[in-house]
Amino acid sequence: MATSATPILKDELDIVIPTIRNLDFLEMWRPFLQPYHLIIVQDGDPTKVIKVPEGFDYELYNRNDINKILGPKASCISFKDSACRCFGYMVSKKKYIFTIDDDCFVAKDPTGEQINALEQHIKNLLSPSTPFFFNTLYDPYRDGADFVRGYPFSLREGVPTAVSHGLWLNIPDYDAPTQLVKPRERNTRYVDAVLTIPKGTLFPMCGMNLAFNRELIGPAMYFGLMGDGQPIGRYDDMWAGWCTKVICDHLGLGLKTGLPYIWHSKASNPFVNLKKEYKGIYWQEELIPFFQSATLPKECTTVQKCYIELSKQVKEKLGKVDPYFQKLSEAMVTWIEAWDELNPSSKSDSALPNGPAKVK
Amino acid sequence: MATSATPILKDELDIVIPTIRNLDFLEMWRPFLQPYHLIIVQDGDPTKVIKVPEGFDYELYNRNDINKILGPKASCISFKDSACRCFGYMVSKKKYIFTIDDDCFVAKDPTGEQINALEQHIKNLLSPSTPFFFNTLYDPYRDGADFVRGYPFSLREGVPTAVSHGLWLNIPDYDAPTQLVKPRERNTRYVDAVLTIPKGTLFPMCGMNLAFNRELIGPAMYFGLMGDGQPIGRYDDMWAGWCTKVICDHLGLGLKTGLPYIWHSKASNPFVNLKKEYKGIYWQEELIPFFQSATLPKECTTVQKCYIELSKQVKEKLGKVDPYFQKLSEAMVTWIEAWDELNPSSKSDSALPNGPAKVK
Repeated sequence: MATSATPILKDELDIVIPTIRNLDFLEMWRPFLQPYHLIIVQDGDPTKVIKVPEGFDYELYNRNDINKILGPKASCISFKDSACRCFGYMVSKKKYIFTIDDDCFVAKDPTGEQINALEQHIKNLLSPSTPFFFNTLYDPYRDGADFVRGYPFSLREGVPTAVSHGLWLNIPDYDAPTQLVKPRERNTRYVDAVLTIPKGTLFPMCGMNLAFNRELIGPAMYFGLMGDGQPIGRYDDMWAGWCTKVICDHLGLGLKTGLPYIWHSKASNPFVNLKKEYKGIYWQEELIPFFQSATLPKECTTVQKCYIELSKQVKEKLGKVDPYFQKLSEAMVTWIEAWDELNPSSKSDSALPNGPAKVK
Repeated sequence: MATSATPILKDELDIVIPTIRNLDFLEMWRPFLQPYHLIIVQDGDPTKVIKVPEGFDYELYNRNDINKILGPKASCISFKDSACRCFGYMVSKKKYIFTIDDDCFVAKDPTGEQINALEQHIKNLLSPSTPFFFNTLYDPYRDGADFVRGYPFSLREGVPTAVSHGLWLNIPDYDAPTQLVKPRERNTRYVDAVLTIPKGTLFPMCGMNLAFNRELIGPAMYFGLMGDGQPIGRYDDMWAGWCTKVICDHLGLGLKTGLPYIWHSKASNPFVNLKKEYKGIYWQEELIPFFQSATLPKECTTVQKCYIELSKQVKEKLGKVDPYFQKLSEAMVTWIEAWDELNPSSKSDSALPNGPAKVK
């Protein structure tokens, strides 16, 4: 089994898990995740007791805790939806976050070896990204790879990586219509690649197997208003991904996708999903052009400033689509206020290594 | 061996091979390529006799033939450089082109099966591309894959694919400085993916293992002025790739990269390469921003019109960098004149299925 002798970034990374059930799935992850600290965000009934396998170091927050810590600002944290996980990002004090769903297990690579997903995420986050030009041999910083002929030398230093987006073997992350049409489709293709999503290109960010640099991009990782009392679900990670991508592009930060894979064990109910998604499927046709054309002024030099500016544009341009987006826009502001309250040191401009990106 | 019973597109595809030597490398390709017609562009000494293995159907053009066919316009075709291959694109009358170097052999996939590179290129070209939004499970049209949750439904039809860019196992396509620094690096990573290069993103297009839809994009596939009498080499395919990408983005056409792999047998001499490349390495730092910001007016509704417009911008903006680009700009115009002379029917606007792209 590919365990590292000393766990990398042990004291600089928190694992955030949203859940409504006992965390038996951690047994399989023990060799890889036990050295790290867990932040468990308990969704749903706060009186329920969540069992965590012995030997794991964790803190757990249920809805009562969230309400106590955030007071009225708790309104920005979703209830009865895995979007509640972003509360964990906010209370963490670490530099890096890895978040994983409780129906995700350890996958095997084509040689049969168990994949240490966290180790690969850390590799992705600690090596630069290349958003300004596409490298045909994928991540040039991996062993055995490099920049190919024709790649401008001035761009080979890359930019800091803010996000590492991992994938899923077995049950692919499909929307309800695709689940309904292809109930038996399984992802069996192991693609041995990591690549940077180019600047100016949006992608569907899935929150199931995701890591990020909290210091670089944390305040943009708001998973929106979903679930209880809200008109949509299953767009929490998408929303976070689109906001994050626009802000990374503006600040000159990179997002990588590809490895590592986890084993996604079970498909959620497509009928329930359809009910959660259908407004999102419709609204999305307006959201994508909005995010594709969103630009941030150069005064926005911190993630917080970018996010507040984006919230204004959401209110102004998406508010017409549905009143939901006015409410969401206000929740975005509340989220930043709550973030700054819990993370007073991150408010200063010095938290950001780069100003806005200069290269196209 | 994975030969198809009836070769796909047998009468609609030409294979273009630039060479200075006997084509013994075709022996290994026989099961896959013998059914197709070859266009061999003989570079260098026209009196030399190039032997082609028995059973292959081919036409061969040496420098004397090129001069005879194009007259004074032959000046746009490079000599003593594999850039001469683009003459083959011009004299072909087929819808599709596959071009391959004579030091490229059949590669094996991880199961040990020989890869039919042409068959995979055809699959890439016959399925749509998705340049407007990134799909995290890569080409959604491959078996076992689809669009993931969050991918806008309005974009799932895709756009016509103009180019399929294949990769190389063994010797990677590195520039001279990287060859010098990493003389022993070999590409052993088989990445089982095909993906669309997003709109607005440039990439380094290598001409070693490349296929394209000649009807859709042919006139943009000019490999420039390289080799004999020119100040640079080894930027022929890069130049074609950047022009092609800008035009595809404007016309709403797609470019795919990834599979198929070929086995690239030998590294070229890095010292010779450095001499050919060094001006390109320097100029490229100006070329990339030029192509990144190049826009074409909506009146440019055919590849030819786009290319002529681009040639004007090259003269105006890159002419200052070096007089070479003024010469190149004129050669670009000559190329289009020669193309239209040999392909009179392609001049009409009806050759293009789409107007300029409407989606961002």
